[in-house]
Amino acid sequence: MIVNGKPTRTIWLGDDGETVEIIDQTKLPFEFIVVGMTSLGDAAHAIADMLVRGAPLIGATAAYGMALAMKDDATDAGLDNAYKVLYATRPTAVNLRWALDDLKALLQPMPAGARRDAAYKRAADICDEDVRMCSSLGEHGRGIIEDIWTAKGKPDQINVLTHCNAGWLATVDWGTALAPVYKAHDAGIPVHVWVDETRPRNQGASLTCWELGQHGVPHTLIVDNVGGHLMQHGLVDVCITGTDRTTAAGDVCNKIGTYLKALAAFDNGVPFYVGLPGPTIDWTIDDGVKDVPIEQRDSGEVTRLTGVTDAGVIETITISPPGSDAANYAFDVTPARLITGLITERGVSEASKPGLAALYPENTN
Amino acid sequence: MIVNGKPTRTIWLGDDGETVEIIDQTKLPFEFIVVGMTSLGDAAHAIADMLVRGAPLIGATAAYGMALAMKDDATDAGLDNAYKVLYATRPTAVNLRWALDDLKALLQPMPAGARRDAAYKRAADICDEDVRMCSSLGEHGRGIIEDIWTAKGKPDQINVLTHCNAGWLATVDWGTALAPVYKAHDAGIPVHVWVDETRPRNQGASLTCWELGQHGVPHTLIVDNVGGHLMQHGLVDVCITGTDRTTAAGDVCNKIGTYLKALAAFDNGVPFYVGLPGPTIDWTIDDGVKDVPIEQRDSGEVTRLTGVTDAGVIETITISPPGSDAANYAFDVTPARLITGLITERGVSEASKPGLAALYPENTN
Repeated sequence: MIVNGKPTRTIWLGDDGETVEIIDQTKLPFEFIVVGMTSLGDAAHAIADMLVRGAPLIGATAAYGMALAMKDDATDAGLDNAYKVLYATRPTAVNLRWALDDLKALLQPMPAGARRDAAYKRAADICDEDVRMCSSLGEHGRGIIEDIWTAKGKPDQINVLTHCNAGWLATVDWGTALAPVYKAHDAGIPVHVWVDETRPRNQGASLTCWELGQHGVPHTLIVDNVGGHLMQHGLVDVCITGTDRTTAAGDVCNKIGTYLKALAAFDNGVPFYVGLPGPTIDWTIDDGVKDVPIEQRDSGEVTRLTGVTDAGVIETITISPPGSDAANYAFDVTPARLITGLITERGVSEASKPGLAALYPENTN
Repeated sequence: MIVNGKPTRTIWLGDDGETVEIIDQTKLPFEFIVVGMTSLGDAAHAIADMLVRGAPLIGATAAYGMALAMKDDATDAGLDNAYKVLYATRPTAVNLRWALDDLKALLQPMPAGARRDAAYKRAADICDEDVRMCSSLGEHGRGIIEDIWTAKGKPDQINVLTHCNAGWLATVDWGTALAPVYKAHDAGIPVHVWVDETRPRNQGASLTCWELGQHGVPHTLIVDNVGGHLMQHGLVDVCITGTDRTTAAGDVCNKIGTYLKALAAFDNGVPFYVGLPGPTIDWTIDDGVKDVPIEQRDSGEVTRLTGVTDAGVIETITISPPGSDAANYAFDVTPARLITGLITERGVSEASKPGLAALYPENTN
């Protein structure tokens, strides 16, 4: 999407044909810094320290990490080492594993001399494939937004509420939850986005606001407590979120707080959609609340916050008294019964086993 | 309740019998500073600049403000002026108006020479009456907590979730939502409190954590997004919140985000109670969502946060990009259908017109 007036992806090959460039997302929204990765170590650092985040972007970065490793050491030992080093960066990330397995399966049978070029090419293909998938998902989602807008008599503003950041910054381009928003905006539909700040890590306030603002999409930041009130008063036309993991039955595990918004949407008759590329569906489980283990993260993410002071310095502050413990659950599960539909690259499905099975027959018996 | 090991109220008469002492709540949880008010101006400043907050405490401070005014100028003009100055500090606060009207009705017919002492005495009575009311509410609420604890076989921990600060800091002592918690704790029931941080002003993280910690009540800070997940997993036994305004039909207008927790409680069969002293019921309206206007506050409360740096300096930071607007709705309305019961100083009632009318027959036709 657009940054400083220029079409931009989250990861791309540098002009020298070797360096892989990324946006350092830990610096957003305060600084836009492009980092050039020239080695396996750079790629591992970028993933582990969250310069890049979002499942699809992690996968793409891992793929390019393998390419950078092959550039320097294309032996079998080099290949094994690259796989191990990258896998250890965020071992629970499904796309990371998938990309590494894909590259390893491709490169292993090759002579060492062919691996470098093959890896770069495959990494580029993975990126392009992700862009195609998100773009297609976006088109299907745009249809939903357009239909709601049309059904309401094409008002001057159509309001989408989103949670966390499932925008293009989490993918290579377009995003998942936000792809429909960008497609609608680019098609001239007057979309406005309510952005949940998404405590504790505030990806809404920092990343979603930033990327929507750069692309010129009207939006308003709200605290996570506000969505229910807005829906009670007809100020939300549709909710769209992303998902980290979707069960075969359509339960959605996404950033903590998603479930509360789905409850409010259900209580007020507001459609609630989830944008997801097919590969994020976990076909091995059905009941999300029972079967998805929820990561607990460092309590410092709750008690401490980073921002910029009036003097322009990036500073971290503590907001709670010293004696108080904090708990930090990273995700929650929204049961399929609260979800109007799942927006995928193949079309929109009911959040149910038959719904998903119809779109992805190859994954079901 | 207890601060630094000593029983403490939020407002009290100083040893000189004239100065009125309060806690500067704007400095919590980082500093515990007692401020002596010696004039009408001091009292007006304390209310307007939120050194004191919470409806009951604002009423008590206004009453003492009238006393401080009478100490310096007990003429009719002095009385009128004190009323006007204090009323202008936070004109929408119901208890402020009530306390001022009460004092004026008492003092107006008196000779000027009698007003000072009468005002001090009446202010002290208002404080004591608030303490009695909250204590009684707390006893009724303790019964609820104890019953739930007993029904579950007296486990080692019983978990209460609360939102915002409806603790003793918002009243003269005991609090409203937290009075049942303190009573249960003091009675040896092993209560643990999940504290919603309550963005944007973070009264949960700053005030509720602080007062629970000082009194020795086990508690854990969470972001506002977490409650639904906890309830899905059986980690909340009961929710108790306060209310700024309760309709005659039992709808509850409280801090933004309360509605989302009530939805989650309802969805998971967790009892959801609201603690309120009778005077906060608005007998003139029924439908809270339709009839309670929701205050919108400065967007800076959303985009900026105050805390303490690692160097120990209190600092304010901005957390969102410069181009992004923010909206700041201060309250929402929880419909009576989601509320298990209202805990008042007269007992526990169903959240309904007949329920409230039975407890307060004098307010209904």
